[in-house]
Amino acid sequence: MRFYDCKTAPSPRRARIFIAEKGIEIETVEVDLRSGEHLKEEFVALNAHATVPVLQLEDGTCLSSTTAIWHYLDAVHPDPPLMGASPIERGRVADLQWHIEMGGFMAMAEYMRNSAQGFKGRALTGPVKYDQIPALAERGKQRIERFLAEVDDLVGEKPFVAGDAFTVADIDLLVLIDFAAWRKLALPADATHARRWYDAVSARPSAAL
Amino acid sequence: MRFYDCKTAPSPRRARIFIAEKGIEIETVEVDLRSGEHLKEEFVALNAHATVPVLQLEDGTCLSSTTAIWHYLDAVHPDPPLMGASPIERGRVADLQWHIEMGGFMAMAEYMRNSAQGFKGRALTGPVKYDQIPALAERGKQRIERFLAEVDDLVGEKPFVAGDAFTVADIDLLVLIDFAAWRKLALPADATHARRWYDAVSARPSAAL
Repeated sequence: MRFYDCKTAPSPRRARIFIAEKGIEIETVEVDLRSGEHLKEEFVALNAHATVPVLQLEDGTCLSSTTAIWHYLDAVHPDPPLMGASPIERGRVADLQWHIEMGGFMAMAEYMRNSAQGFKGRALTGPVKYDQIPALAERGKQRIERFLAEVDDLVGEKPFVAGDAFTVADIDLLVLIDFAAWRKLALPADATHARRWYDAVSARPSAAL
Repeated sequence: MRFYDCKTAPSPRRARIFIAEKGIEIETVEVDLRSGEHLKEEFVALNAHATVPVLQLEDGTCLSSTTAIWHYLDAVHPDPPLMGASPIERGRVADLQWHIEMGGFMAMAEYMRNSAQGFKGRALTGPVKYDQIPALAERGKQRIERFLAEVDDLVGEKPFVAGDAFTVADIDLLVLIDFAAWRKLALPADATHARRWYDAVSARPSAAL
């Protein structure tokens, strides 16, 4: 098994933290996105979508989405359960994770990819070139600001996003907040539940990865 | 348990077909999106995202994303396995489903919501009003056309998208193709594998729902 990673990108970090929390050892290959290694023939042969992370399994199957990597590893290594233990928890964690991905990561991607100079002509991941759309950058920024304003209510008094246990919903929210901070977008100053939660999850050894 | 549905929208159909394939009976409530019932106080109290489908569980939990509804029901009713039986299948099905959702449904949503008269001022689902972005409609149309051109290779010689068994990857691809047809976008005429697959899955009783 081989994990194709990139230390500077947010998506692979979602998989890295999961792998660390499960306590799994996987051979890791660093892919240099800055020099465009993900767009080269050798890498596109593994993943036609030209994105990281990728988990290559023993039989050659390449999983090229974070959720698929999570589902595979969770089925092979059920403990600790990071995607919910009971059916209700599995549903609730999947729901929270999906909303954080759609409302948070998709909004950040809209903002970043349609405004940053380095993404000119590359407004979507993948091999096809798409021009930046300035109005979409603006919409993405509005959306991520609205999302960050709602994190305090999302977390509330609970130790973790989904309740008493650390799950993929915490992984996604942590990675998203650090990604947003890179563009100077932060949790509101009075988001005390969210800040308490953020400090706790950031202190876990997996968060340093 | 109660399922909040809308017969005319593509997302709830993804859950409806899944429920039918599992052979589960669930009390269903029709939500009239055309008259804006999903934006009214009573419904937003169940689902702040103001979208269908919603699955309300016995304990009051409301799952408001199709994937969460699938994961909950799959954990309670594992047979037939619609999300993969083995760990590798679970990973592969999750991967295919994610790519169909991102490359297919997201592209259709970009196209539809940013061009149709009926979505003026409602370019994203949810309670917040966002203006349509014409350039995003155009990009969405290009993306969905590219996606449809690739379905033949995605299906290939296999009976189903993920291999020998019908899964959520088939559900999503079927619903997507019918959704695209509604806007006069179709599989290429020479997509023989895709058309053979489409005819087979469309003939299943669940597809009539």
